[in-house]
Amino acid sequence: MVGHPSSPKHLINSNSLIFGFFIFISSTHKNISRQADMDYTYAPGRNHLFVPGPVNIPEQVLRAMNRNNEDYRSPAVPALTKTLLEDVKKIFKTTSGTPFLFPTTGTGAWESALTNTLSPGDRIVSFIIGQFSLLWVDQQKRLGFNVDVVESEWGRGADLDALASKLAADTAHTIKAVCIVHNETATGVTNNLATVRKILDEYQHPALFLVDGVSSICALDFRMDEWGVDVALTGSQKALSLPTGLGIVCASPKAIEASQTAKSLRVFFDWKDYLKFYKLGTYWPYTPSIQLLYGLKAALDLIFEEGLDNVIARHTRLGTATRLAIEAWGLKNCTQKEEWFSDTVTAVLVPPYIDSSEIVRRGWKRYNLSLGLGLNKVAGKVFRIGHLGHLNDLQLLGCLAGVEMVLKDVGYPVKLGSGVAAASAYLQNNIPMIPSRI
Amino acid sequence: MVGHPSSPKHLINSNSLIFGFFIFISSTHKNISRQADMDYTYAPGRNHLFVPGPVNIPEQVLRAMNRNNEDYRSPAVPALTKTLLEDVKKIFKTTSGTPFLFPTTGTGAWESALTNTLSPGDRIVSFIIGQFSLLWVDQQKRLGFNVDVVESEWGRGADLDALASKLAADTAHTIKAVCIVHNETATGVTNNLATVRKILDEYQHPALFLVDGVSSICALDFRMDEWGVDVALTGSQKALSLPTGLGIVCASPKAIEASQTAKSLRVFFDWKDYLKFYKLGTYWPYTPSIQLLYGLKAALDLIFEEGLDNVIARHTRLGTATRLAIEAWGLKNCTQKEEWFSDTVTAVLVPPYIDSSEIVRRGWKRYNLSLGLGLNKVAGKVFRIGHLGHLNDLQLLGCLAGVEMVLKDVGYPVKLGSGVAAASAYLQNNIPMIPSRI
Amino acid sequence: MVGHPSSPKHLINSNSLIFGFFIFISSTHKNISRQADMDYTYAPGRNHLFVPGPVNIPEQVLRAMNRNNEDYRSPAVPALTKTLLEDVKKIFKTTSGTPFLFPTTGTGAWESALTNTLSPGDRIVSFIIGQFSLLWVDQQKRLGFNVDVVESEWGRGADLDALASKLAADTAHTIKAVCIVHNETATGVTNNLATVRKILDEYQHPALFLVDGVSSICALDFRMDEWGVDVALTGSQKALSLPTGLGIVCASPKAIEASQTAKSLRVFFDWKDYLKFYKLGTYWPYTPSIQLLYGLKAALDLIFEEGLDNVIARHTRLGTATRLAIEAWGLKNCTQKEEWFSDTVTAVLVPPYIDSSEIVRRGWKRYNLSLGLGLNKVAGKVFRIGHLGHLNDLQLLGCLAGVEMVLKDVGYPVKLGSGVAAASAYLQNNIPMIPSRI
Amino acid sequence: MVGHPSSPKHLINSNSLIFGFFIFISSTHKNISRQADMDYTYAPGRNHLFVPGPVNIPEQVLRAMNRNNEDYRSPAVPALTKTLLEDVKKIFKTTSGTPFLFPTTGTGAWESALTNTLSPGDRIVSFIIGQFSLLWVDQQKRLGFNVDVVESEWGRGADLDALASKLAADTAHTIKAVCIVHNETATGVTNNLATVRKILDEYQHPALFLVDGVSSICALDFRMDEWGVDVALTGSQKALSLPTGLGIVCASPKAIEASQTAKSLRVFFDWKDYLKFYKLGTYWPYTPSIQLLYGLKAALDLIFEEGLDNVIARHTRLGTATRLAIEAWGLKNCTQKEEWFSDTVTAVLVPPYIDSSEIVRRGWKRYNLSLGLGLNKVAGKVFRIGHLGHLNDLQLLGCLAGVEMVLKDVGYPVKLGSGVAAASAYLQNNIPMIPSRI
Repeated sequence: MVGHPSSPKHLINSNSLIFGFFIFISSTHKNISRQADMDYTYAPGRNHLFVPGPVNIPEQVLRAMNRNNEDYRSPAVPALTKTLLEDVKKIFKTTSGTPFLFPTTGTGAWESALTNTLSPGDRIVSFIIGQFSLLWVDQQKRLGFNVDVVESEWGRGADLDALASKLAADTAHTIKAVCIVHNETATGVTNNLATVRKILDEYQHPALFLVDGVSSICALDFRMDEWGVDVALTGSQKALSLPTGLGIVCASPKAIEASQTAKSLRVFFDWKDYLKFYKLGTYWPYTPSIQLLYGLKAALDLIFEEGLDNVIARHTRLGTATRLAIEAWGLKNCTQKEEWFSDTVTAVLVPPYIDSSEIVRRGWKRYNLSLGLGLNKVAGKVFRIGHLGHLNDLQLLGCLAGVEMVLKDVGYPVKLGSGVAAASAYLQNNIPMIPSRI
Repeated sequence: MVGHPSSPKHLINSNSLIFGFFIFISSTHKNISRQADMDYTYAPGRNHLFVPGPVNIPEQVLRAMNRNNEDYRSPAVPALTKTLLEDVKKIFKTTSGTPFLFPTTGTGAWESALTNTLSPGDRIVSFIIGQFSLLWVDQQKRLGFNVDVVESEWGRGADLDALASKLAADTAHTIKAVCIVHNETATGVTNNLATVRKILDEYQHPALFLVDGVSSICALDFRMDEWGVDVALTGSQKALSLPTGLGIVCASPKAIEASQTAKSLRVFFDWKDYLKFYKLGTYWPYTPSIQLLYGLKAALDLIFEEGLDNVIARHTRLGTATRLAIEAWGLKNCTQKEEWFSDTVTAVLVPPYIDSSEIVRRGWKRYNLSLGLGLNKVAGKVFRIGHLGHLNDLQLLGCLAGVEMVLKDVGYPVKLGSGVAAASAYLQNNIPMIPSRI
Repeated sequence: MVGHPSSPKHLINSNSLIFGFFIFISSTHKNISRQADMDYTYAPGRNHLFVPGPVNIPEQVLRAMNRNNEDYRSPAVPALTKTLLEDVKKIFKTTSGTPFLFPTTGTGAWESALTNTLSPGDRIVSFIIGQFSLLWVDQQKRLGFNVDVVESEWGRGADLDALASKLAADTAHTIKAVCIVHNETATGVTNNLATVRKILDEYQHPALFLVDGVSSICALDFRMDEWGVDVALTGSQKALSLPTGLGIVCASPKAIEASQTAKSLRVFFDWKDYLKFYKLGTYWPYTPSIQLLYGLKAALDLIFEEGLDNVIARHTRLGTATRLAIEAWGLKNCTQKEEWFSDTVTAVLVPPYIDSSEIVRRGWKRYNLSLGLGLNKVAGKVFRIGHLGHLNDLQLLGCLAGVEMVLKDVGYPVKLGSGVAAASAYLQNNIPMIPSRI
Repeated sequence: MVGHPSSPKHLINSNSLIFGFFIFISSTHKNISRQADMDYTYAPGRNHLFVPGPVNIPEQVLRAMNRNNEDYRSPAVPALTKTLLEDVKKIFKTTSGTPFLFPTTGTGAWESALTNTLSPGDRIVSFIIGQFSLLWVDQQKRLGFNVDVVESEWGRGADLDALASKLAADTAHTIKAVCIVHNETATGVTNNLATVRKILDEYQHPALFLVDGVSSICALDFRMDEWGVDVALTGSQKALSLPTGLGIVCASPKAIEASQTAKSLRVFFDWKDYLKFYKLGTYWPYTPSIQLLYGLKAALDLIFEEGLDNVIARHTRLGTATRLAIEAWGLKNCTQKEEWFSDTVTAVLVPPYIDSSEIVRRGWKRYNLSLGLGLNKVAGKVFRIGHLGHLNDLQLLGCLAGVEMVLKDVGYPVKLGSGVAAASAYLQNNIPMIPSRI
C-alpha cells in the first residue's frame, strides 16, 4: 500500500536538539467531540504495546489500583509504606540505601538525585549517548551545574576511557559526581556500571556515582551496593509495569550525607522532608497516590514471586530473541557492539530509503502495534522495540510477526516469518517451565 | 524436553460419551492455601487465551462492568434494558425477533429454546456432529422429547440429505422442530443454515428451526430473519467477549406463538414471564446482573463501532490465516471439507504418536498459552485453536508461534516459523487499515 | 413540594397477583440516546443503596472481579472451585451438605431445589406470607407439584400450627416436602426454622425440608445441619454482596439421595451433572463465570475475616437500630410481632393518606437514596429498607436521615432527627471496636 | 468506653512548627506480613471518608482509570490532552489562562507557580493563617525568595489591611508577588480573593497574584479572569475527586510573560518545556499518567454534567449544613467569622478537656469514619470535617451522625441526633431535585 514512504523525513530531523520527541502523526489532530475522544484509538483486539515505556500493566496491578482514596494519615498507609520501602530496596539490590517514592516521573527523579547531592556550580561528568542522556545533561546544565560532557556517537556506550582520563587528571577532586544512564532508551545501549565503579576505585576518586536506571532497574542486572552507586532511580511505568507517577530514588549513605550540605534549592524533591517523616513514622511530607502505593505493592509481589533474577533472565531471553529476529531480517542494531546490547529495548536501523517513522505509523494504523520512534539524531533512522516489563515470549513473537508485515508494507524486502523463526528457534530451547504450573 | 508423550491417552478416551469434558492436568489438584489460590496460575506477561470460549474481554467492557450494584427497579435499569433489547436484535440480524437476556449459560439458553416451543414427546430432528451437538441432544432427550438423531462422523457437517429425507417422509408433520448447531465448537465445523431453510421450504415443512449459535453469532454470518430461524441463541462469553452469565435467546413470531401452547414445564426459563414484564416496562421477572447489562452495552457498542460485517470479515480472515498455518505445519484440519471450515475455532488433528492433550498441557505450562482440548471422540486426537471474539491478527500470530514451539516440544517435526510465515503472507495482503486511525 | 401525593395508588394495587413487581416511575421511560443511558442516573455522590438486594459490593470484591476470562478447563479454575465448595459450606453451617454454584439467580436456585428432589404430582406444603413466598409457590405449581398452600396475612410469619396439623394428619407421609422462606423479603418477616424442624421431628415426618435463604444466609442465624435442612439456597447479590449471577444451593445427604429418584425433568439445574464433574475433579458441566468465582472467593474471605457470627451480630444491630428509628417516627413495622422481625429488611407501614411508592420515588429523585417498593398486596402501603450485606452503621444512619426528609417531603409529620437519635442511642452503646484497628 | 481521654496531648503539640503532620496512632505500627497489609484496615461497609482530601472518587472516574498503559506519543494521547487543556480552563473560569497538568502534587504545583514567575531574592507578600499557608511560606523561603510574611491568628482570614498597607508603602514596586491560599485547609478559612484584587487595583500595584486553590477550585466560587489571578493551582485529589498525582496550574498571560524572565532554576516544573510541546502538538515533555488523563476527562465530564455552578452550590449547602450541626452540638467553629467560613472543610473546636486527636482515632477505630486531625498549632484542639468533592447530603448526614457518637464516646455531652436534626431541617428545604431523574 505504501511503497517508499513519502513522509517529510527532513521535517522530522529538523526538530530541535533538546526536544527530540514528537508525535508521529501530528496531522491527525482533530477537534473531536467528547465521546469520540475516548474511542479515538479503538481497534479490535489488544493493543500490542512495545514502546520502551510506559509498558503493559499486569491485571493484578490494575486490580490493586482499582480503589477509592483513603486517609493517608490513618495507620494503614504508613504501614503499607513501611513495607514498600523495605521491599523496594530489593530491586536496587541494596541493604544500606534509603529509598524515596516521589510522586513524579523519571525527569523529576533525575532532579531529585541532582539537587539533593550537589550545589550550583559543582563540576560533574556526564555522558551523552542518546536522547535521554542528552535530556539529563540538559537538566544538569539548567540546574546550574558545571557539566563536563562526554559525548559518544549514538549507538555506542559511554566513553569510559574518557572518564578514566578525567578522573586521573582530577587530583584536586573537583569532580563532584559522575552521572550516567544505565540503559539509554533511545538507542538501546547498556552501559557497564561495574566498570564505572572500577575506574572510580582505581583513581580512589570520591565523586558521587549517580545512575539513571529508568529503563534498567527490575529488568537488567543492577547492583547498587556492589557497584557503589550513590543514587539510583527509576520510574514506575518502566520495568515495574505500573502507570506513570512514581519516581523511585534510592540514596546510599554517602549520598544522604552529601544531601546535608548540598546547596541546590529544592523543596518538593527534598529528601530532608521525607527523612523527617520517616522518623516520625508517617512517611509522607505531602499526599501520596494511594492507588500507586497499592499498585507498587502488587507489582513488587509479582516480581518477588517470579524472582528478581528470573525476571532479569527473562529480559535477557527476550532481548536475545529480538536481536536474532533483526539479524534474520537483514537489519542492523543501532547499538554497535554486543557489550552494549540492551535487553530492555532494541533500536533497529532501517535502510536509508525507508523512513523509520513510517514503520511506527504503519504499525499503529494497521496492526494495533505500538513501536517506539527514533528520536532526535536517529529520528527517521531507527524504530524501537521495547521488550521490558510484564511481557512474555509469545507476546514478543506476535510483535515480531507484526514488524515483519510492517517492514513489507513499507517496501523492505523481508522474508515473512524469518524473524519469528530465528527467535523461536532460540526461545524453544530456552523458555523455562512456569514454576507454578509444573 | 518431552519427546513422545507418555500421558495415559487411553484413560482420556475412556471418558463417558456424555461427559466428554475433563481437566487436562487433574493430577495437579492441590490443597492450596487461600492466598496461593489466587496466584496459582501466575506467569509473567499476558495469558494467551485461545480456547473457543470464554474469550478475551475488551478493556472497555471490563471498565463498564467495574461498578457497584444498583436497584434494578429504578428507572435506569429498564431504560438500559430497553436499549439493549433493541441493539441485541442487530447481532441476530432480525427485526421481527424477540430477544431474551437470561441470566444463565448456553446450556440454559438451549433449555429455554426447547421448553418454550415444544411439548414433552414432540418429535424433533437433531444432529450430532461433535461434543456440543451431542450434549444438546442429550438435553433434548432428558427433557422428554422424541429425538430423531442424525449423527455424522466428527469432522463432518450435519447430514442435510438425511434431513431432506426425513422431511420428505414426514407428510403428517410429526416433526415439530429441527435443532442444529450453527458451529460445532468441538470440531470446528460450520453447518449451512441457509440450506436447512431451503430444505424446510422445499418440503413446505412447518417445523420450527432452532439454532445453537453459541460459537457463531457475532462472528460468523448469521441471518435470523432471512434464514427463517425460529429460535437462535448465544452465550455472552463467546463472540460477544463478555464474562459468562448471559444466555441470549431470540425468538421469531412463530416461536413466540408456539410458546403459548408448548406444554414443557418451565419457570426460570419461561418467556411468558419476560413478555409480561416487557409489557409493564420493567423488563425483569427476577434480578438481572447489573454488571453484565452495562457490559453488554459496551460490548455491543464496540461491535457496532467496528461494524458487524467487519467483525465477521475479521473472523473470516483470522480463520483463514489459522488454516494456512496448519497446512504449512503439515497437519490436518479435523474438519473434512472446506465448506464446513469454521472461522471461530479450528480443531487440528495430530499424528497418532502424539497425544493432543499433551499439547494443551504444554502450552499452558510453558508458554502461558491456553488452547482447547480435544473432547470425547476426538480427545487426544485434536487440539483446538479458538479464534473468536475480541482478537486481532498479531495476537493470533503470537499464538501460532507458540503452537509451533509446543509442537516441537512434543516431538512433531515442525519447521519453526513456517505457520507464521504462511499466515503472515495472507494477512499482510488482507488486513485493512484501522478506520479510526487513518 | 409534594404535599399529599397524587399518584394513582389504585393503579399500583391493581397489579396482577403473581407479577407484583413494577417499576416506580414507569412514565419516565424515554427513548434515550446511547451515551445518555449510561449517565441516566447520574447524581453527585454515592448512591445510597438500601433495597434488600442487590446490595453494595465491597471494593475488595469489585477488585477481585476486575479480570479477563480464563480457560475454565485449566487446573486453576478447578483448584479455585474446590476451595470455594469447601468455604461455602461454612456459610450454611453444614459439614455434610453438598453445595452447588449455579450460574443463575435465586429463582433458578428455587427451581434446582425443587426439581432435583421432587417428582411431578408430589404433595408439598408451602407457605405464602409475602410476594417472594408467593412467587415460589407459583413456581411450585407451574412445575407440576401438588402444593398445599398455607397462607398468612402479609406481615405475619408462616403458620406453623397449620404445618403441625397437616403433618399430624399425614400419617401416610404423602407430604414429600415442606418449603419455606427463611426471610420474606417483601414484608421483613423471619420464620423460625428451628420450630419447623421441631415439628417435623415431633411427628417423625420424613418430608424434605427445603429453605429459601435468599435474604437470610450470611446475615441471619442459619444452621443447616443443626436444623436438619435438606436444601438451602441463596443468591450472590444478597448478603454475600456480590453481583447477581450465582444461585448457591446446598443439599443434605438425604436431598442428594432424593435426587437419585426424583422424576422432575431437569438438565441445566440437574445436580447429577455437577456431581459427576465433582468426581472427575473438573467441577463444571458447563462454563462458569470466572469473575464471579473470584468474586465469591473475595466475598467469603471478607466474611471469614469479620467472622460469620460477627456478621450476623452486625445485622442484628442494624435491624434493631432501624426498628428503633421507625418507632421514633411513629410508624409501624409491617411485621406484626417481634418474633418475626427481620434483621435484613424492614417493611415500614405508612399512613393511609400516603402512597409509599411516592416515598421510594422521592428518595431516588431527590436524595440518591434507593429504597424498596411495597409489592403486590402491600404496594403503596409499605416501603422497605434493606439493611443487609456489606453495610455499616453510619451508612444506615445516613439512610435513616434521608428517610426522615423524604417522609417530611411527602407530608408525614416526622420530627427530623428523631429516628437517627433513637438509632444512635442504641448504636453508640453497641457498636464494637473494629478488631483490625484496635 | 473512653471517658476523658488519656492520650498524650502534650506530645502531639510538641511537634515541630513546620512538620505539623503526624499519624494519629503511631503506636500501632506493626511489622505486618504481606497479605495482612492489604487488609490491615478492613472493616465491614464503606469507609466514610471525610478528610479534606484525598476525597471520594466517583465510580465513573475509577472506571475511566481502569486501563492499561498506552503509547503517549501516538495521536490518541495528544488528542485527549488537547481536549483536557480546553476543558480544565473552565474550572478556573478563565479563557485567557494557560493550564499545565503536572504529574505532581499540590506541593509541586506551588513550586511550579513560584519558580516560573519569580527570581531568587524577589520580595513577595505571603500570609500564614494555618498549616498549609505556613508550609507554602516555608517553601517560598527555601526557594530563596524574600518573604514578607503576614501572620494571623489561626482561625482568622488573611490580614488584607496589612496587605493594603504594604502595597501602599511599596511605591517602588519591590513586591513582585502576593501569594495567598484561597482556602486554608487546616482551619477551614476562606480568604476573599476579590478583595485582594481590589486592593491591588486600588494601589495600581503590578505584583503578580498567586493563588493556592487546592481546597477551593471546583468547590468554591473561583474566578481567575474576573479576579485577575495570575497563577492558580489545585491538586487532583481534592474537589476534582481524582487520585493524587496531578498538580494543575493555570497561568495568566502576565504570568506567562513573567516566566520568560524569571531566574529561578527549574526543569521538571518549567512551563517553557510544556509550551514548546504544546506548540508541537505533542503536549508532553515527559511521560504523563495515561490513567489520570482519562480519569480527569471523566471527572470534568461529571462536573460539567452537574454544572460547575451547581457543584459550587452543593458545596455551599453541605458547608452550611455542617455548621448548623456543629452549632446544635454546642461546639465552635475554629473559623472566627462568618465571612471566612469554608464550604469545603470545617475545623471544629473541642472543649479543653478533650483531645481532638482522640476523636479522629475513635472515628476510625470504631465507626470506619475518617476525619481530619488538627495540625500544628491547633493539634489536639480541632478536628476537621472535609465536605468536598464527590459527596452528597446523605453521606454528610451519616458522617454527622457518626461524629455525634464519637463525641459521646470521648465524654462530650452531646445530644445524639441534634446535629443531624439541625442539618436536616436546612437540607430538606434546600436540596434540589436531581435533574436527570425528574
